Amino acid sequence: MTDGHHMHPDAFRRHAHDLVDWIIDYQERRVNELPVLSQVEPGAIRARLPEAPPERGEPFDAMLRDVDAILLPGITHWQSPDFFAFFPANTSYPAILGELLSAGLGVQGMLWATSPACTELETHVLDWLVGMLGLPERFRSTGAGGGTIEDSASSATLCALLAARERATGFASNERGLDARLVAYASTQTHSSVAKAIGIAGIGKENLHLIDVDETFAMKPEALAERIRADRAAGLVPFFVCATVGTTSSNAIDPVSAIGAICREQGLWLHVDAAMAGTAAVCPEFRYLHDGLDRADSYCFNPHKWMFTNFDCDCFFVADRAALIRSLSILPEYLKNRATESGAVIDYRDWQIPLGRRFRALKLWFVIRHYGIEGLRHHVRRHVELAQTFRSWVEADDRFTLAAPAPLNLVCFRHRGGDDANRAILDAVNASGDLYLTHTVLDGRFTLRLCVGQTRTEAEHVERAWARIRGAADVDIEGGGSDAA
Amino acid sequence: MTDGHHMHPDAFRRHAHDLVDWIIDYQERRVNELPVLSQVEPGAIRARLPEAPPERGEPFDAMLRDVDAILLPGITHWQSPDFFAFFPANTSYPAILGELLSAGLGVQGMLWATSPACTELETHVLDWLVGMLGLPERFRSTGAGGGTIEDSASSATLCALLAARERATGFASNERGLDARLVAYASTQTHSSVAKAIGIAGIGKENLHLIDVDETFAMKPEALAERIRADRAAGLVPFFVCATVGTTSSNAIDPVSAIGAICREQGLWLHVDAAMAGTAAVCPEFRYLHDGLDRADSYCFNPHKWMFTNFDCDCFFVADRAALIRSLSILPEYLKNRATESGAVIDYRDWQIPLGRRFRALKLWFVIRHYGIEGLRHHVRRHVELAQTFRSWVEADDRFTLAAPAPLNLVCFRHRGGDDANRAILDAVNASGDLYLTHTVLDGRFTLRLCVGQTRTEAEHVERAWARIRGAADVDIEGGGSDAA
Repeated sequence: MTDGHHMHPDAFRRHAHDLVDWIIDYQERRVNELPVLSQVEPGAIRARLPEAPPERGEPFDAMLRDVDAILLPGITHWQSPDFFAFFPANTSYPAILGELLSAGLGVQGMLWATSPACTELETHVLDWLVGMLGLPERFRSTGAGGGTIEDSASSATLCALLAARERATGFASNERGLDARLVAYASTQTHSSVAKAIGIAGIGKENLHLIDVDETFAMKPEALAERIRADRAAGLVPFFVCATVGTTSSNAIDPVSAIGAICREQGLWLHVDAAMAGTAAVCPEFRYLHDGLDRADSYCFNPHKWMFTNFDCDCFFVADRAALIRSLSILPEYLKNRATESGAVIDYRDWQIPLGRRFRALKLWFVIRHYGIEGLRHHVRRHVELAQTFRSWVEADDRFTLAAPAPLNLVCFRHRGGDDANRAILDAVNASGDLYLTHTVLDGRFTLRLCVGQTRTEAEHVERAWARIRGAADVDIEGGGSDAA
Repeated sequence: MTDGHHMHPDAFRRHAHDLVDWIIDYQERRVNELPVLSQVEPGAIRARLPEAPPERGEPFDAMLRDVDAILLPGITHWQSPDFFAFFPANTSYPAILGELLSAGLGVQGMLWATSPACTELETHVLDWLVGMLGLPERFRSTGAGGGTIEDSASSATLCALLAARERATGFASNERGLDARLVAYASTQTHSSVAKAIGIAGIGKENLHLIDVDETFAMKPEALAERIRADRAAGLVPFFVCATVGTTSSNAIDPVSAIGAICREQGLWLHVDAAMAGTAAVCPEFRYLHDGLDRADSYCFNPHKWMFTNFDCDCFFVADRAALIRSLSILPEYLKNRATESGAVIDYRDWQIPLGRRFRALKLWFVIRHYGIEGLRHHVRRHVELAQTFRSWVEADDRFTLAAPAPLNLVCFRHRGGDDANRAILDAVNASGDLYLTHTVLDGRFTLRLCVGQTRTEAEHVERAWARIRGAADVDIEGGGSDAA
């Protein structure tokens, strides 16, 4: 029993050492052995938790035992090398150390003054990334732009949309509410967070016009231009385009340069979402992904997807930070301070939805310094190579077909047996616990996705995944008599 | 050099041990010795960071050295026992362990299916808090309500506002945008996040009507009722009220019961923000803070302020989770799964702005289990007692006066010498590095605030703070000849 006291530092040291060993054992061994997708039924975890909280304190050892006994069966192992679902959320030991230090310092970085280092390290590391990824110089904080860490691409998109909304309304809608009928554009393949943001911002999802895509699932710029013309003719006010570099469904790459030219001509805000794929630009051979990005007003990518940095870490850049700050700034009396009034500092509370913020730059700084640019390139190239090998296997197997171009680390494919066959394969491999795949729908057809990006994924894991998928096709489709044959 | 490889587990263990020792030394010793408020000039930290990121990996020891040499002078020490500014953001070793485990597991809890334990532990611990704080039963997930962890009260307020906006428009504004002229209400003392949220939601800050307060800085319910009547008569559509239990300025407590009666009668959504003060309700003697809360549609408080749980951890409760979910839900094909379709599970992505989420319930669970209810009560009572002692010193000193009621752990006070005298005291104590105070303005007058809530704050720290404040008054006002005398 702890009798309500604060934990003694010696106890903390002992428990932290135990927990570090637990994490090593988890990351090095157990993620390889446990079913990747948790197999519990709804309510199963809660049913094992005590109904009431404890009146008196409990020892930490009991908590760590409960993590194993109660929680672990309810964990879907994102850090498993056999996790090929959604997009990765990869981590690394340097990032975990960054999270630990952030927790240990316990600073609140809402204002520059509430910890100058929290703000300045973030600004600095985001400037580093401009160079590392070959982003336009206009995103550097040393000019009119700058970068910040948001929790997610969803939040970055919302902030971009709000700045665009304010710019389009002469910075009046924040104050007076919306009147003009604003319209925004994205492709039919764009992430759902854009529609969510449009709803939040009071613009209305029906004013998000989805633009048709070509055979690579990339936005057709001529269709965008035409729709903007038609909307203007109908008395609407086009104001915002979201282009995607690497869609969630299939890693499609919108033609940013052509879209950017239209946005420039039409005076629309261009936001570019490269949530996963953006990391690839650390390699010169993938830097083409960012072609035309100098025409964008804002950009984001997520080191918490493919750059070994724990969630949450979305890097959000703007070319004109004044527009963003003016859209999100608040300054009540109790937050006023000399540094803010001097105008010489960045107060990141004005770059985001919440007021408070953790010291998230630490983990990103540790990751970049641990791996170095060369190290990050090495791992990205390896993941792309593994995905391309998988793609070649799909192409060589008559029963399967590619469902979309696979330029990087995501392969979309189908069994030729139809939707039910593909559903059966998905269910079988996920129920096996051996790997975790998710699906999408492309051209109206149920499509399997395999995304390579986990920290510990090696050739053997991709080989086993392919064997398991083929096995499921043998047993569940051809062997069992397909209902879709 | 690491040559781009992943960090070896043995190296991780060694560095983690070093970092744990660093954190213990920081929390136990250095926060007592370093200037509480960072004294660096803008740009000083950045100037010491290398202009370019490293091409090759660097050893972790070098990073930890840079934390000491470069970053630490730029840290404002929120964990110092002499931190009395703003609201606290207190932490504890159990919470730090929770953050470490969350980072080590690296799960992404956007859907129930992506880690059932991440969702179910959160739902469960939030239900625990309903009992622990004496919150209305309707906030429990076992009925129509439920709780979730948001990053901050700002985000909780925005989510509440969006659900209210949707309910008021027949759940149409998300889809079609805003047309009716909605109006919201809060007191003149309400946190700036409400105005920020109103701006974000497209309603317009001028449609946030600020209601006058009484001599305790609490909202006047009769003024609210009158304004609602007048607004309806003017053709506006009142829809939302934010009441505050413990305002940021002065810990004023809005009369939730009376406000709730008006909201019920008028069909308005009532959100109650108890960001810091809510924690006090863990003690039966402070449970009066939540009188009338059964009339609220939503409620939030922040364990990351006063419940020893690292930021970010805001607990947000709703009485009707269906309204919230309907307002924020998105379900693209690539997120569809059997569990979601069954309707038997909570997908927390639909309770928040972002899509992704960390496993934040772990730290809260560790804190509640480590301290137990009795332990939390003990520390809250101690903080209130220390603040009340400080208040008695202020009252006993002829040169000072209380500026507002001090029901809990925040004391607002003034030197009688006027605004310039109080500014001089604030600047002197903060420049000393011995403690950190912030200010507000009440009744148009510059007011000092001393908030007791840090994990390690004891009687000696409050005594020293008072001695230093009196000393500053002696030297900077009476001694130096006051410019405000």
